[in-house]
Amino acid sequence: MNAKLEQLKDLLGEIYDLNRAQAVLGWDQQVNMPVKGAEDRGDQLATLARLAHQRATSEELGRLLDELRGLDAAPDSLEARLVKVARRDYEKHTRVSAAWVSEFARATTVAQSAWEKAKANNEFGVFRPHLEKILELNRQYAGFFAPYTHVYDPLLDIYEPGLKTAEVQAIFATLRTQQVKLIQAIREKPEVDDRLLFQAFDEQAQWDFGVEVIQRFGYDFERGRQDRSVHPFTTSFGLDDVRITTRFDPKFLNPALFGTMHECGHALYELGISHSLRRTPLADGASMAVHESQSRMWENLVGRSKAFWVFFYPRLQRAFPAQFGDVSLDTFYRAINKVAPSLIRVEADEATYNLHIMLRLELEIAMLEGSLAVKDLPEAWNQRMRDYLGITPPNDSLGVLQDVHWSGGMMGYFPTYALGNLVSVQIWEKIQQDIPDLEEQMMRGEFAALLGWLREHVHQYGAMFEPQELIQKVTGSKIDPQPYLRYLQGKFGELYGL
Amino acid sequence: MNAKLEQLKDLLGEIYDLNRAQAVLGWDQQVNMPVKGAEDRGDQLATLARLAHQRATSEELGRLLDELRGLDAAPDSLEARLVKVARRDYEKHTRVSAAWVSEFARATTVAQSAWEKAKANNEFGVFRPHLEKILELNRQYAGFFAPYTHVYDPLLDIYEPGLKTAEVQAIFATLRTQQVKLIQAIREKPEVDDRLLFQAFDEQAQWDFGVEVIQRFGYDFERGRQDRSVHPFTTSFGLDDVRITTRFDPKFLNPALFGTMHECGHALYELGISHSLRRTPLADGASMAVHESQSRMWENLVGRSKAFWVFFYPRLQRAFPAQFGDVSLDTFYRAINKVAPSLIRVEADEATYNLHIMLRLELEIAMLEGSLAVKDLPEAWNQRMRDYLGITPPNDSLGVLQDVHWSGGMMGYFPTYALGNLVSVQIWEKIQQDIPDLEEQMMRGEFAALLGWLREHVHQYGAMFEPQELIQKVTGSKIDPQPYLRYLQGKFGELYGL
Repeated sequence: MNAKLEQLKDLLGEIYDLNRAQAVLGWDQQVNMPVKGAEDRGDQLATLARLAHQRATSEELGRLLDELRGLDAAPDSLEARLVKVARRDYEKHTRVSAAWVSEFARATTVAQSAWEKAKANNEFGVFRPHLEKILELNRQYAGFFAPYTHVYDPLLDIYEPGLKTAEVQAIFATLRTQQVKLIQAIREKPEVDDRLLFQAFDEQAQWDFGVEVIQRFGYDFERGRQDRSVHPFTTSFGLDDVRITTRFDPKFLNPALFGTMHECGHALYELGISHSLRRTPLADGASMAVHESQSRMWENLVGRSKAFWVFFYPRLQRAFPAQFGDVSLDTFYRAINKVAPSLIRVEADEATYNLHIMLRLELEIAMLEGSLAVKDLPEAWNQRMRDYLGITPPNDSLGVLQDVHWSGGMMGYFPTYALGNLVSVQIWEKIQQDIPDLEEQMMRGEFAALLGWLREHVHQYGAMFEPQELIQKVTGSKIDPQPYLRYLQGKFGELYGL
Repeated sequence: MNAKLEQLKDLLGEIYDLNRAQAVLGWDQQVNMPVKGAEDRGDQLATLARLAHQRATSEELGRLLDELRGLDAAPDSLEARLVKVARRDYEKHTRVSAAWVSEFARATTVAQSAWEKAKANNEFGVFRPHLEKILELNRQYAGFFAPYTHVYDPLLDIYEPGLKTAEVQAIFATLRTQQVKLIQAIREKPEVDDRLLFQAFDEQAQWDFGVEVIQRFGYDFERGRQDRSVHPFTTSFGLDDVRITTRFDPKFLNPALFGTMHECGHALYELGISHSLRRTPLADGASMAVHESQSRMWENLVGRSKAFWVFFYPRLQRAFPAQFGDVSLDTFYRAINKVAPSLIRVEADEATYNLHIMLRLELEIAMLEGSLAVKDLPEAWNQRMRDYLGITPPNDSLGVLQDVHWSGGMMGYFPTYALGNLVSVQIWEKIQQDIPDLEEQMMRGEFAALLGWLREHVHQYGAMFEPQELIQKVTGSKIDPQPYLRYLQGKFGELYGL
């Protein structure tokens, strides 16, 4: 049995190496690659992906997993979890036909260019046939997993193993009413002036300040690095090389400042995974929502808190004396927490963000169920923007065409963003119980206890547990919207005097 | 037959992709990787190397090559050359046992650390057992190719396909006498003062000047990039992404200046390979010597010429006014062409460089033949340094331990450096016939005709021809020491008034 387990680990290790090699090539593509290197890089990535997929669906892997069914190990042991997760992945991968995989790769490659063109020219019609194709392919994907309770379940399961659509819908139903109410209340209050965030900010000074922040968070530059890229992201080349990228806006402080903290949150998660899971499929986050809970925690619960800025604001003033020398901490704090319905999801504040997500989930489900035709999508989008946020996109580029996910074929992904927000506060409430002086520590720029807590309770386990199982283990309950709603009421109730 | 050819191309393309992916991971390791990422990166590189090797020695490849024996194609056609080179590589790879490959990888990994330690502490004894092991493994490698005329032939063949040891020895015999004589004559002349090259040089100014030079050479930053690394190198990720690295010394102009031109020469070669050879084993240099002929041409025949500096010296003076504002072009030109026997190969001038190589070749052959024991190597090294260059290394770190090649297992590589020098001038003489005003063009900073000539006559062919075949085709004769000797006599005869 041990020999079989070693064989399994070797094979999974090979798949892991191929996937991480792809990550290196992908990172280089976005960070360094000269423009004309794209064609060759595409071939290299396709070859590595094909070899990884062959192994992930190989008869050899299936046979090993069968032979390991009788593995005599405690159910929570690393070995038992490894076999369980490997079997789950194998069953998923082998259900999907090779023809579908090729078709999907082709369709999304073409859709990507079409979407870019559609967005640039504000022409939904250019993207429409591609979205129809992608919708059909997503339906087919779900079909591989029939029978299912809901057509959306198999898609959601890609990003949130074990989570069901009905659970998400129940959570979102509670959120929607409460968040819409909160936003309406805020809208009746005077608008916060955040023009101070839109000034000229020297890029090197932005970089240096961001580095100071994430070093205090505990990001170790011997196990990672920061680079520039058009779209910020975090990528892991193994448990000791997890890199982040940042985008700098010379005239707006937020993108780099909060983006760096956000990506650092993702990176700290990966860097906290136990080395005992090295080179296995468990050396990964538990799910996209759990991952997002970590990035949003450092970005928002830490980075947009008053306690954080008690320590860092004098430092920010020293970095940008002309911009902030005469601005009070309170004025700055209000500016970075301004609530205002906006068109673009990625720029949304904490109070409105989830509504952007709900809108997308409802539209995805309606399209998959067949109650909404792709041709009617822009109007359905705009109607919901009015209903939830009270604004109407002036055009489709700022509306239905804004996100990359659909052209990438990713239906089922969006909910994880909102769920990540919820989970971040669920965990945060637990941390506040365990570290009563957390706020005082943050006011002194100390984050070691926080990071240590996260490593002990969340990070070290990697992908050993399904997301709901992990969240239950950490917080005592499954994903629950109430902590996040309490947080919003508390924070914005005070800020806006509700 | 066409279907078979397509299958062959697919398989070779897959091997190519795996090799180029390794190149990306290797580049990242030397340029970007955080220190603690080494262990995971080692696993990833080992996996990619293993998968590439499995394919390169697979029965499938052997069968395809057998089936393509009857290929009805002109012998110089791309298809015929592709099959020929693929068969040559396959036969080489399959002769070597898998056990040897593992053993060699293990031995050189350990030897690398031992050599670093030996060099740092000036203790040859630390490296000695490892070199003995590597010597034995190199003998075994040669054994896979028995019967051979000379034990060195199979090793040389790794780097110079088709070239024989006897050819190299004949060439070097001519060179040795003449170059030793030249150096002795120069030694009787007053020493050139080159202290002006050893001043403080701002790194960014060095970088900018180097970029200006290689852009004029024709290096296209849309198809490559420059980064910093401890050891400068050129690496190709495909025909449209060929990158160079440079090392900057804040107190010595030469390393970055001539290093950048040297690596650019390698890169221009790779960037000039015809796109019809894309993703095949032909998309490579013809040999290490031909590659080195290109780097040395741009570094020395161009970069250390008077004509080059007629154009660039005023620019260099503007970049470093404090250092060169009052220095004449003639004084500068003499300084960068100073001839003086030195201990370190990579810092040697054009007149002494080849002697460093001959010394190594003689020692490698003596060790392989068994007439020199590894324990006696340091003294044999020092004796030859005295005979050829008239100097004695003060210690082994500056002597026998200076180069990385032996700890890397590479015996057979050194001759290519000297051969590259010879080939560079052979080709240069041909270019001077075809472009009579080459010198005037260089004086105007124009290199397009030169690069165009090299692309047409050398670069485009990639690895289609064996090195001697290519050199014959380009220059009308095989590798010949006379042009290089004429060049040395002419240049240094004038500089030193011989």
